[in-house]
Amino acid sequence: MKRERNGGVWDFEHSMAPASGGQDLILGLDGGTTSTVCISMPIFPFTDGVLHPDPPVLARAIAGCSNHNSVGETAARETLEHVMADALSQSGSTRSSVRAVCLAVSGVNHPTDQERILNWLRAIFPNEVKCFVHNDAVAAMASGTMGKLHGCVLIAGTGTITYGYTEDGREARAAGAGPVLGDWGSGYGIAAMALTAVIRAYDGRGPQTLLTSSILQALQLSSPDELIGWTYADPSWARIAALVPIVVSCAESGDEVANGILHDAVQELAESVRAVVSRLGLCGEDGKDRCPLVMVGGVLEANKKWDIGKRVISLVSKEFPGMRPIRPKVEPAVGAALLAWNFLKEES
Amino acid sequence: MKRERNGGVWDFEHSMAPASGGQDLILGLDGGTTSTVCISMPIFPFTDGVLHPDPPVLARAIAGCSNHNSVGETAARETLEHVMADALSQSGSTRSSVRAVCLAVSGVNHPTDQERILNWLRAIFPNEVKCFVHNDAVAAMASGTMGKLHGCVLIAGTGTITYGYTEDGREARAAGAGPVLGDWGSGYGIAAMALTAVIRAYDGRGPQTLLTSSILQALQLSSPDELIGWTYADPSWARIAALVPIVVSCAESGDEVANGILHDAVQELAESVRAVVSRLGLCGEDGKDRCPLVMVGGVLEANKKWDIGKRVISLVSKEFPGMRPIRPKVEPAVGAALLAWNFLKEES
Repeated sequence: MKRERNGGVWDFEHSMAPASGGQDLILGLDGGTTSTVCISMPIFPFTDGVLHPDPPVLARAIAGCSNHNSVGETAARETLEHVMADALSQSGSTRSSVRAVCLAVSGVNHPTDQERILNWLRAIFPNEVKCFVHNDAVAAMASGTMGKLHGCVLIAGTGTITYGYTEDGREARAAGAGPVLGDWGSGYGIAAMALTAVIRAYDGRGPQTLLTSSILQALQLSSPDELIGWTYADPSWARIAALVPIVVSCAESGDEVANGILHDAVQELAESVRAVVSRLGLCGEDGKDRCPLVMVGGVLEANKKWDIGKRVISLVSKEFPGMRPIRPKVEPAVGAALLAWNFLKEES
Repeated sequence: MKRERNGGVWDFEHSMAPASGGQDLILGLDGGTTSTVCISMPIFPFTDGVLHPDPPVLARAIAGCSNHNSVGETAARETLEHVMADALSQSGSTRSSVRAVCLAVSGVNHPTDQERILNWLRAIFPNEVKCFVHNDAVAAMASGTMGKLHGCVLIAGTGTITYGYTEDGREARAAGAGPVLGDWGSGYGIAAMALTAVIRAYDGRGPQTLLTSSILQALQLSSPDELIGWTYADPSWARIAALVPIVVSCAESGDEVANGILHDAVQELAESVRAVVSRLGLCGEDGKDRCPLVMVGGVLEANKKWDIGKRVISLVSKEFPGMRPIRPKVEPAVGAALLAWNFLKEES
């Protein structure tokens, strides 16, 4: 008998007929600092070994932060357990229908983190369920490659990080050390440079820029002086990163300072990819070996004339013509489920 | 009768003979975020209008933080009142001997701050005492010019800020907006760039550097990975800025990355000075008018072969040959007292 914990989170299973939930399921979970998503998908469309181009999601459950570094181990586990139970309950299934679970959770950075969460996960599900635990970059990668852990994933939202994976299981990362330690291509990095440019224009250290009026108007401030108080009133990185669209629109209007900031960010992001691809030899010696480059996050979204992602691709492709950029069509939680499916397939 | 507050802080006055403390005094106070210093000096050596080259300090009292932004208005006032009473008591004098008080306190950024503290100060001292309130940059300036509020002061410790003052009372500032907003020449800025260089060397984005082994050894860490945790464990800027001497010693050993970081910092600091001097026209149209440049703070201390302050001077002097660099020989609290003495002299 598996333990019943967490306030009877699995109680719903008792009310289901023993034969119910006949179809075998996979759970895929993407756990981030702002939210956690768990999806369930049937395993049968894949049993012939060919992946459905648009994998059918049976149920989708959402919860809050599941990064143990942010909310602590206990709260993170409660969130993970609840969101998995919720997805299963929505699917009309019980844990006995689950064939595999893949958790991709931010904050899982060391093998010890992975092992700890894996042991906890195994205690929740029946012994025959295959359990996998990774960090959230893996889900982002798999969402672009439909479950294959090979290539490079560049994530640039509030923060930025690049991961790379070889087919024989090696991996490498670049950036992701936070704003103090030079993640200058991140949304936070771009916006902090824009705020700095406003201060420098104001005190005479830098050229005048359209960023001044645009940012002051957006923040409803009357003078660049007030930016100092605004910045320190709330140290949230996301709040600062939210200014990126203003920087992009100033650059599109031809502002040289804003253009310079975005060009620098492109260089930084391309440098991250270059570092990972080189270290792992992902594109071979001549840079021409084919290798997926999955691009994820608000900074890389292709909805603007000044397209940061497109310029990163163009810079990276010069050195590595084999790079194949991919903008994922499914969400990371689906990527996690597809990864589990791939592992199952390889094992059988 | 003046109010007695603050737990009888002025009680010591009752035990003094009415005729005691015969000599007239000036109080000078330098209030910072880490500590507050108050000194008393006799006014008589100055009564002939010529300043003693080494002003005699009668008493010196030290207390903690008096920045109202950091500890709140009440705690800041208690600290200020205690440290003034302590200096007077050590001098064997009472408030009736005081001719002038000059408080130079960090966090006094607006005329409203100044007016509020001035009213509070006037209520403590007899009506005939001249009271002056400024921010702490003024004390640093006056410590270099022996009480004259004219020229430019460059402060570079954990943070950095530049102030300029014209003889007709105009002033300007540059930088001082904190690390998020680009105070890159500060001790924090230099050290953050060094930490970033270690991360970039480690993940392949930047060249190898001597900073890696030097910084890891100093922090007793075994891998650059651990720097991320170290940085976020304690957000104190001073803790990061304390790494500056390591950057300087790596630069002295010929490390190119460390040299690049220090060269950039020199450019930044010189740019701050240039901005203030230009806006106020402190060196005239041809840059040749004589103007003091007071240099204060750990980053500018002239105790190393790689002398940041000297290189800033050399860069600034190219554009403004009239600049006269000064490294203060007295402490800022003495500067504050000399400033009060100068104001008294101008009034009489």
